[in-house]
Amino acid sequence: MPATSVKNPAGPFTGLLVIDLTHVLNGPFGTTILSDLGARVVKIEPPGHGDDTRTYGPFVGDQSLYFSFVNRGKESVVLNLKDPADRDIFLNMVRQADVLAENFRPGTMQHLGFSYEELAEINPRLIYASSSGFGQTGPLAHFAAYDTIIQAMSGIMDETGFADGPPTRVGTSLADLCGGTFMFCGIASALYAREKTGKGAHVDVAMFDATLAFLEHGFMSYVATGAAPTRIGNRHPFMAPFDVFETGDKHIVICCGNDHLFAQLCNALGLPGLATDARFLTNSDRIAHQAALKDALQSALKAHLSEYWQSVLHEAGVPVAPLLNVAEAAQLPQTLARNMLIEAGGVQMPGNPVKISGYDDPKVRVGAPSLNQHGDALRREFAAHAQAANVSA
Amino acid sequence: MPATSVKNPAGPFTGLLVIDLTHVLNGPFGTTILSDLGARVVKIEPPGHGDDTRTYGPFVGDQSLYFSFVNRGKESVVLNLKDPADRDIFLNMVRQADVLAENFRPGTMQHLGFSYEELAEINPRLIYASSSGFGQTGPLAHFAAYDTIIQAMSGIMDETGFADGPPTRVGTSLADLCGGTFMFCGIASALYAREKTGKGAHVDVAMFDATLAFLEHGFMSYVATGAAPTRIGNRHPFMAPFDVFETGDKHIVICCGNDHLFAQLCNALGLPGLATDARFLTNSDRIAHQAALKDALQSALKAHLSEYWQSVLHEAGVPVAPLLNVAEAAQLPQTLARNMLIEAGGVQMPGNPVKISGYDDPKVRVGAPSLNQHGDALRREFAAHAQAANVSA
Repeated sequence: MPATSVKNPAGPFTGLLVIDLTHVLNGPFGTTILSDLGARVVKIEPPGHGDDTRTYGPFVGDQSLYFSFVNRGKESVVLNLKDPADRDIFLNMVRQADVLAENFRPGTMQHLGFSYEELAEINPRLIYASSSGFGQTGPLAHFAAYDTIIQAMSGIMDETGFADGPPTRVGTSLADLCGGTFMFCGIASALYAREKTGKGAHVDVAMFDATLAFLEHGFMSYVATGAAPTRIGNRHPFMAPFDVFETGDKHIVICCGNDHLFAQLCNALGLPGLATDARFLTNSDRIAHQAALKDALQSALKAHLSEYWQSVLHEAGVPVAPLLNVAEAAQLPQTLARNMLIEAGGVQMPGNPVKISGYDDPKVRVGAPSLNQHGDALRREFAAHAQAANVSA
Repeated sequence: MPATSVKNPAGPFTGLLVIDLTHVLNGPFGTTILSDLGARVVKIEPPGHGDDTRTYGPFVGDQSLYFSFVNRGKESVVLNLKDPADRDIFLNMVRQADVLAENFRPGTMQHLGFSYEELAEINPRLIYASSSGFGQTGPLAHFAAYDTIIQAMSGIMDETGFADGPPTRVGTSLADLCGGTFMFCGIASALYAREKTGKGAHVDVAMFDATLAFLEHGFMSYVATGAAPTRIGNRHPFMAPFDVFETGDKHIVICCGNDHLFAQLCNALGLPGLATDARFLTNSDRIAHQAALKDALQSALKAHLSEYWQSVLHEAGVPVAPLLNVAEAAQLPQTLARNMLIEAGGVQMPGNPVKISGYDDPKVRVGAPSLNQHGDALRREFAAHAQAANVSA
């Protein structure tokens, strides 16, 4: 491994070289999984301020959290991909790389002369992954594709929220993150296949496709009825009671998947009559009368605090949980025990959810690079190889 | 390939045998990606009604869509894992399998005598993937883990919704689907590593960890301020205007990432004065006065229908999109062009978002199996191998 390299812990992808042309959120999220799992990821940034997200808040000191969260464990070099000398360095990297990932608007890489077909010619083993809003094909391939646009067009906003409220954006950039994760899925699959075929491939993932794949219940309702589903708030589409409830202080969730648990719940609440009420006898009955059921449960639950009900219901064997905010979730003992609150470059962030035996999953990881932090070393490394290649050619 | 096999299209995982002990949603979603990408996936179901979701609605005829959506392209055999003869068949499968996936509550596989350590002894190349609510380790490992509970405890519900409204469940089983997707990520990564090491591994993925990894903006706010983020509805945390708006009929989204686009928007709306209003000069100004800005834009937008504004703003180069329901999203020409509306077993469902060159991505795929559909053939296949193994031993 070159002396310039970031020392990521060993993982399944140790020894692989990834050229990372991705920017903002979607692509970088996917390539971060590669660096978490051991790959060497070289981020190529444009001259000027580099990846746009370096200028996005929130900041800790002069460090953009937005940038840091999805670029940990990577190296950075600034290259002007329109400059002949920099293009040579880039092409030398391509000759040695295992993976190239990009999330430009479709057509940009072709315009630069770096289409899959062109790069596969100089490195037939290259896995070339493109992530974009709507994919490389189809009538919307060139449509502007922010996360909010994909959430709006995929149906996920329309199925999130309450029946009497507006469509609701998922409170995280779900389309970006799904797209990045499925891009990783494609890269890992193509890397496996390359071991059998010796050949690279073009992976083409769309945030839109990825979000459609996550629609689940709403899509089922559409197929069953031909109509769009209605928003159902926090309750479960097919089970009741299975919802968020207010207590004397905080929200809790209660999940009764069967009649037995419902009877346990009624007893624990001091409402044994509910379990024998004709409206609530079976799950279907409870779904049919879910509003009345919710009112009855809600009245009882408001009489005590969240901690009280958690303890009483837990004791009764009824699935119950607190509704936590992000700060509480981040500090949960479970989060810490699973190394899901890590530190990288002095900043706390969510850890790596892919735990594989035989590899370390450290609590402290290498942070995101400053702009061009590894520029000199990377330019030397890939210029030298260029000369060697020319000599031997 | 045995004559019993489902004929999935060739993919990167063609030739691999996956034992699928997963049930309900989370695990089956992950193993469906494997079958979509060419693996042979044998679903082992318990005696009785098999996977619980076979009894869940919605139904088309007597086919559960819930079950069909996440079990396409798989084979089904009913095995009683407590019965000695069935255990022998299962262990013969394990000897030949590449992957075993399970999403029982932690401890169940150990109780059956099928822990990773035990199965690795008879097949050291086995990738053994466990998906669960909170993971195999930590104080909450045995806590009940429905999707709603994970959404509640991970912070995602608290960061979804409006500032003046309640925490809001993402309108899809996000925690289940994230967990299943990251389980696939772990399996694909471990399969790649096995090509180098010759060894299997235990993949341990938690729905909770997976959902934490998707928190993004809320987690950043927490790290920056030490406090939980407030809900911000449909708007963007760092850019304005970047939100959902009502028109004369339907909702649209408008995404202006910079001052130039904002000026274009104001001109197109016939409100050029807004762009020079001191409250709205820069993105920071617009964020600081986003409520006033939204009111001003909203009034203008309500004067015409959605179609009109889409056309006018598109013409002006302003990123704009319709807010579609699931039915509209499913039938979008882009969805069809990308094969994201497929048919499997006579039922429409979302397609495979992982597009890799060199492999077919058919519009019609093999459907989910009926209970024990491949039972006789699978029992014969793996009993025969058992005898062969005994003879040669």
